[in-house]
Amino acid sequence: MKIAVLGTGIVGRTLAGRLAELDHEVTVGTRDPAATLARTEPDQMGNPPYGQWQAQHAAVQLGPLADAAAEAEVVVNATAGGTSLAALDAAGPTNLAGKVLVDVANPLDFSQGMPPILSPSNTDSLGEQIQRAHPQARVVKSLNTMTATVMVDPARLPDSHEVFVAGDDQAAKEIVRDLLRQFGWPDANIRDLGGIRAARGLEMYLALWLSLLGTLGTSEFNLKLVRA
Amino acid sequence: MKIAVLGTGIVGRTLAGRLAELDHEVTVGTRDPAATLARTEPDQMGNPPYGQWQAQHAAVQLGPLADAAAEAEVVVNATAGGTSLAALDAAGPTNLAGKVLVDVANPLDFSQGMPPILSPSNTDSLGEQIQRAHPQARVVKSLNTMTATVMVDPARLPDSHEVFVAGDDQAAKEIVRDLLRQFGWPDANIRDLGGIRAARGLEMYLALWLSLLGTLGTSEFNLKLVRA
Repeated sequence: MKIAVLGTGIVGRTLAGRLAELDHEVTVGTRDPAATLARTEPDQMGNPPYGQWQAQHAAVQLGPLADAAAEAEVVVNATAGGTSLAALDAAGPTNLAGKVLVDVANPLDFSQGMPPILSPSNTDSLGEQIQRAHPQARVVKSLNTMTATVMVDPARLPDSHEVFVAGDDQAAKEIVRDLLRQFGWPDANIRDLGGIRAARGLEMYLALWLSLLGTLGTSEFNLKLVRA
Repeated sequence: MKIAVLGTGIVGRTLAGRLAELDHEVTVGTRDPAATLARTEPDQMGNPPYGQWQAQHAAVQLGPLADAAAEAEVVVNATAGGTSLAALDAAGPTNLAGKVLVDVANPLDFSQGMPPILSPSNTDSLGEQIQRAHPQARVVKSLNTMTATVMVDPARLPDSHEVFVAGDDQAAKEIVRDLLRQFGWPDANIRDLGGIRAARGLEMYLALWLSLLGTLGTSEFNLKLVRA
């Protein structure tokens, strides 16, 4: 499958690398590929420069946002939440029309210091904003509730745990479900929460996730649902 | 221990009943005890009238909010989140001063229809509002992330799962931890998230909880943390 992963941070890299391992045709989309490759310093999060990662992942292409989206069947939004709407605008509505658009981003706002707040939140969500901005895209919110290494390799945790999907297009959710299965997610742990409005709860959970991160001292955790 | 449970709904009843079984001296606090006992119709949530429950729980006292709080060592806020600040104001700041105040409420706002939104949220929480309104109370947010039957009997779920505590007073959290142990919570599953600010994440999780309620078709579920 032709997949565009928008975003060159650790989430985009982890998803792109794993999807390429699974023999998908992966292009990472970035605003300015030459500038991305020219960087030699670690990024804001302390990750090695993208070019270093790219050199070790020859199967992954790098291209401008619009080119990456234009050729893809599935587009993954792995940009920082605060820049996602602008990045998707640059990718271009016509390049997103009819595409499955997997939104893994969280609208974290660091402008008021740490811990970040969510913007939007409660009465809206980034997932809904993206769906409204791109009514012809088939937006599926998923994977935003965990760290990237767990997204692509759920078996690294020593018990079963959950991944959620939310979106208005049932067929698009089935395509995402199939990709999740390829990552190793058992079908029973892929939990369909209904329409894209459920992105609110999935994003608002980040506030608790950040507390848990601080308490556990590792980002490699997730939730298992236990029911009577 | 003398414990006041403020609120006559299903959460208050479940906590009061279980605390009385554990041989605590329990008074349920309500705005107008005579009016509460006079009701003969089910409440808004379809629960039987309080008087019927009271008749089956003779060990539990019923009193006005201020009287209940005045005599208690621990006060549990089990009122509806939208009315909690008013109820605690009626209970009286002097009656709450120095007391452990366990806030199990969620600030659900149903005024815009279903599902409810949270008010406050994101940049504030009910737990913080209560602590600010009653600076001499020792507020501990806990138990708000699950249905009442699970709060008081965690063993009814077939795997381990978590309960959280958040508050600025470490000794108050230890007292709450001890009550949780009496309910059957293993110490390892009582997760201290730090100061009362963590109430934001605990309350914001309710949006996801409501989605899960709709998906699972039962309120008797909770989360287990799985970590690498």
